Amino acid sequence: MGMIPETYRRIVLANRPLTEPAETDFSLEVVPMPEPGPGQVLVRIIYLSLDPYMRGRMRDAASYAPPVGIGEVMTGGTVGEVVLSNHTEYKVGDIVEGRLGWQEFGIGDGPSMRKIDPILAPISTANGILGMPGMTAYCGFFEIGMPKVGETVVVSAASGAVGQVVGQLARMAGCRVVGIAGGPTKCAYVCDELGFDACIDYKATNDLGAALQDDCAEGIDVYFDNVGGPISDAVTLHLNTWARVILCGAISQYNAAEPGLAPRLPAFFVGRRVTMRGFIVSDFAAHFEPARRIMSRLVEQGRLKYREDIVDGLENAPRAFIGLLRGENFGKLQIRVASETG
Amino acid sequence: MGMIPETYRRIVLANRPLTEPAETDFSLEVVPMPEPGPGQVLVRIIYLSLDPYMRGRMRDAASYAPPVGIGEVMTGGTVGEVVLSNHTEYKVGDIVEGRLGWQEFGIGDGPSMRKIDPILAPISTANGILGMPGMTAYCGFFEIGMPKVGETVVVSAASGAVGQVVGQLARMAGCRVVGIAGGPTKCAYVCDELGFDACIDYKATNDLGAALQDDCAEGIDVYFDNVGGPISDAVTLHLNTWARVILCGAISQYNAAEPGLAPRLPAFFVGRRVTMRGFIVSDFAAHFEPARRIMSRLVEQGRLKYREDIVDGLENAPRAFIGLLRGENFGKLQIRVASETG
Repeated sequence: MGMIPETYRRIVLANRPLTEPAETDFSLEVVPMPEPGPGQVLVRIIYLSLDPYMRGRMRDAASYAPPVGIGEVMTGGTVGEVVLSNHTEYKVGDIVEGRLGWQEFGIGDGPSMRKIDPILAPISTANGILGMPGMTAYCGFFEIGMPKVGETVVVSAASGAVGQVVGQLARMAGCRVVGIAGGPTKCAYVCDELGFDACIDYKATNDLGAALQDDCAEGIDVYFDNVGGPISDAVTLHLNTWARVILCGAISQYNAAEPGLAPRLPAFFVGRRVTMRGFIVSDFAAHFEPARRIMSRLVEQGRLKYREDIVDGLENAPRAFIGLLRGENFGKLQIRVASETG
Repeated sequence: MGMIPETYRRIVLANRPLTEPAETDFSLEVVPMPEPGPGQVLVRIIYLSLDPYMRGRMRDAASYAPPVGIGEVMTGGTVGEVVLSNHTEYKVGDIVEGRLGWQEFGIGDGPSMRKIDPILAPISTANGILGMPGMTAYCGFFEIGMPKVGETVVVSAASGAVGQVVGQLARMAGCRVVGIAGGPTKCAYVCDELGFDACIDYKATNDLGAALQDDCAEGIDVYFDNVGGPISDAVTLHLNTWARVILCGAISQYNAAEPGLAPRLPAFFVGRRVTMRGFIVSDFAAHFEPARRIMSRLVEQGRLKYREDIVDGLENAPRAFIGLLRGENFGKLQIRVASETG
């Protein structure tokens, strides 16, 4: 670890985009280094997680979390190294996970941080398979999906941070798993590396319904939905009686100024007794400790694989984030804000 | 009880309507009286229940129950009197509930019937508050709605067979209850007679959202949906975090040839953690016995009121059913097929 610089860079929200964000909606600032107060630590951020939910924070609308204000640092999960500590439980050199945002340094306090053991797994996984996306997959799939052996599970955004985990867990749970992803490379990865039973390239078909019929001949029992929109409309029509739809995200809709229109479902949902439930990962906070223990072991055993898409440099976060909303990333997207070795 | 006639009347499906049914889609037939076989009984039908689900049986489409074939008797719940019995547990004069359809006489067997005690409550209630609609209200509201004291419950088709029961149960469960109904008479009944806290006349407002905002200032926690369509679209936008949507029916859509379009909800449902679940009353068959015991007591105590809309004469069933789909009935719609006293 080197000297602590006098200034650092951060990215703030400059404008609220109505549709697709542009790089000009973000602004890179250089500001003086803060000093940690009593009970606080100064963290040198190494990895910044980029996630679809951040698009919601750019809207000036009440949601489950307050929006980022204009001129405020973009929120985001981070993994970094403690470089100054006024907290008895954290010492300089500790690796910590926290929500310090799109910046090179941040101030953390005890309750909002979690110490990471860098021996167990690469520290970037604390933003990925062993972090928020992994917990989202594990808790959403099991707590809402309630999968049973022999059922058919469909996962949209199958190669993404959450989808890749859901599909592997579903396979281990004895389910048949069909992914939906964009492009042959992602589909091949999902089948060949992660062991999904099939993966539909939605960009290569103009009849997703027929493709689903082929790959899910016995219908769909659990749909883990990361995308919403027309892809989900097609999946819905293949749901079996008693199906569960896990609403995790709707990335296809996040850049829309207004909600689009979709075929009405309630009459269909009555006949099929479909349960559709939206969730936020923090709803299941009480499950994180056991889930992380299990997931860590599966990763260590090589039974649970993961793919990260790491982009270097904080200054590239806006462009990478815009690409994420377009589906350009391949695996869990992160920014390497600084070198692990300082 | 008089002599058993040699023929009887029944109504069969003549055509499958694509949109609103017409009277010509039904046909009245006179057919010879059947004889009950071993273990069967002949029932003189007194009350025929008319319910929205019957529209679904007129479609030639797989659903949770098979469609009525062209030339087959329309299905329906009935209450009647045993006039011939080859079953040891049923004797002539017993009042029984069963699913004998749109006809004056029907053959029942033991397992598909239930004996009614005519002392406890008017026998027509076995088609209504103490029958399928009452069970639908009780089980759907409590098993899926999971209401809590102090929550706000909205019920569409509030004066209908199911809605009127849901609202009264919700009041007794300590909830604030807002109905939605068509016309001042139904709204006044729901508030003044049944004790709902408020009732919105959807025909008298062109801004249902504003009306909901007025009457549900703290948002909506449970929505018992009998209607679907634009009314439900408006309700949905007022759902609170953790809201439950009980999908019981979608009568506004039953005459539509194709599902219409609705605003996309999944992104909203994620943020609000909404659970939406469709059900069929028979899903909760294991709950009927205790539910009926409780509901019977509440009716006896005068704490649970009900309103029936009884139309005389089997020949009027098609017109009454068409009116039901238009919301013209006021309370649980039934056909008095024959006099109770024979």
